[in-house]
Amino acid sequence: MSDKIKTVGIAGAGLIGAGWAARFLARGLDVICYDPAPDAGPRVKAAVKVAWPSVLKLMGVKKVKKGKLNFTDDVEKMARKADFVQEAAPERENLKIKLFAAIDKAARPDVIIASSSSGFLPSRLQSKCAHPERVIVGHPFNPVYLLPLVETVGGEKTSAEALDRARKFYESVGMKVLRLKKEIDGYICDRLQEALWREALHILDKDIGTTEDIDDSIVYSAGMRWAIMGSFMTYHLAGGPGGMRHFISQFDPTLELPWTDLKFPKWNKALETRLVEGCEAQGEGKPVAEWEAKRNDVLVDMMLLFEKHNIASGSVVKRERKLLKKKAKR
Amino acid sequence: MSDKIKTVGIAGAGLIGAGWAARFLARGLDVICYDPAPDAGPRVKAAVKVAWPSVLKLMGVKKVKKGKLNFTDDVEKMARKADFVQEAAPERENLKIKLFAAIDKAARPDVIIASSSSGFLPSRLQSKCAHPERVIVGHPFNPVYLLPLVETVGGEKTSAEALDRARKFYESVGMKVLRLKKEIDGYICDRLQEALWREALHILDKDIGTTEDIDDSIVYSAGMRWAIMGSFMTYHLAGGPGGMRHFISQFDPTLELPWTDLKFPKWNKALETRLVEGCEAQGEGKPVAEWEAKRNDVLVDMMLLFEKHNIASGSVVKRERKLLKKKAKR
Repeated sequence: MSDKIKTVGIAGAGLIGAGWAARFLARGLDVICYDPAPDAGPRVKAAVKVAWPSVLKLMGVKKVKKGKLNFTDDVEKMARKADFVQEAAPERENLKIKLFAAIDKAARPDVIIASSSSGFLPSRLQSKCAHPERVIVGHPFNPVYLLPLVETVGGEKTSAEALDRARKFYESVGMKVLRLKKEIDGYICDRLQEALWREALHILDKDIGTTEDIDDSIVYSAGMRWAIMGSFMTYHLAGGPGGMRHFISQFDPTLELPWTDLKFPKWNKALETRLVEGCEAQGEGKPVAEWEAKRNDVLVDMMLLFEKHNIASGSVVKRERKLLKKKAKR
Repeated sequence: MSDKIKTVGIAGAGLIGAGWAARFLARGLDVICYDPAPDAGPRVKAAVKVAWPSVLKLMGVKKVKKGKLNFTDDVEKMARKADFVQEAAPERENLKIKLFAAIDKAARPDVIIASSSSGFLPSRLQSKCAHPERVIVGHPFNPVYLLPLVETVGGEKTSAEALDRARKFYESVGMKVLRLKKEIDGYICDRLQEALWREALHILDKDIGTTEDIDDSIVYSAGMRWAIMGSFMTYHLAGGPGGMRHFISQFDPTLELPWTDLKFPKWNKALETRLVEGCEAQGEGKPVAEWEAKRNDVLVDMMLLFEKHNIASGSVVKRERKLLKKKAKR
């Protein structure tokens, strides 16, 4: 059915809604944007204009057949015209529940209604809908027109078929689709981001460093690794040839250390199995040394790229290059 | 005094110690490595060999005058020969306190002794030293020969002069030096990493996704942003033209939402000021739109780089390129 999607309805024309619009338009889809604000049109158009060169560069094309962009302040009109609805309204649960009920009423029953919420449960969002089986969460990341991830999750009444169709659709607009095993507040990525953010605020509150210090601690180290691999693979590599299986024997003593304001989950056999076997599956049977070599290749190229762009970790590379030139002249 | 550093002593020849060795040797410094294990020599040599091509590529040179690498199982011998000591022993506080006392006894009193600990307080590490003023933490990140960050922090008895000299030395070996305002368990970066890691384990424990799902949620989204900017600048940009000042008025309602197992710090005026003014200082008076454009440029180039290396977010770009080619042929 995803082949039949020609027009995407967007509900809410803020930063995220406009980001979706740019992504869809670049794939030749028509967009009808609903927002009660009178300046929604010019704002979205300006945002799409900003996004455009980056989107084309990423797609590797000079130009594309752009979809048509329309606006309405009538939510039912948007819902009637749409083959897929992406909600991107402000992050207030009651507002979203009401909005979903209104969209559900006007949209064809086979039209998927996806929420861009950063954390509300789909079971709640679908609770006032006559056709709740087509309601899902499809959570993107800013800038939506560049970052590929979309987290999908269904509520109690969502059908597996709706999630399958959503996957096909999101993949067709260049996205990486992650499907959660079950719903949870904050989903996966925002729980992780929120933990980092709250800990950063604790550190700032304790006056250990400035916002710049705290940001620097990320961009000159862990952040570069996280662009390549998440915490699990990072520590799988830190375990040496034995990977995560060896790592957990080492990190056991640090479990209880007060190294963040967040406590560890209670350790248990099921968690250990999921952890070790999960990392080994991610490793695809390749020796840790092979992953290390790959990581090094990418890290070096990333820092050289940052040198070119004159940002963060690249600035250190640049500084040392100058130093080396000076030494060579002596 | 940092100009006079010719030989660096390393205490502990594991993953981190070997990483330091590679970094120092590439800058022409001699290294004397202390480790009681009989296979320390071959292990460090093998690790340096792995590191070498990446280090040279990053430095932008085909070859360098490499320092000499020596080994000893006698901690006093290492300490007597060193102009700077970098400890990288296993993460056990008692072991490190004893090791620091032994190094302190044998080293010249002006020699800085720096710990690679991921979280112990320098006041504890220096507690059995006759010259505690030269004891600091100098916490690096794996791979030490590539990632530029070193977190430095002094204990109650550390002199400001020792921290100044350590800064000069670390900068001379291509590092970005972060100095904490005061000591805290886990310092800055490891508190952040540990919060993310513990939340990741909570998510795995609740069986919301596999280790791969959780890692994917990072590498296809937030991780790429974290290579460029930390949480503060990320949310400064999410605040639109008003930056962080506007963002906090928006995110207030989400403070109490259960989007991680970590609680927010109690909100207060001093924290708010530090947060808003810190982000505005980081923004260097440039409009948020200018930072957005820069972020987009770097994000696109990063994803194209990942496409070349055939990893994570680049794989999505590659998939879409194929799709576009197929379409064009129709």
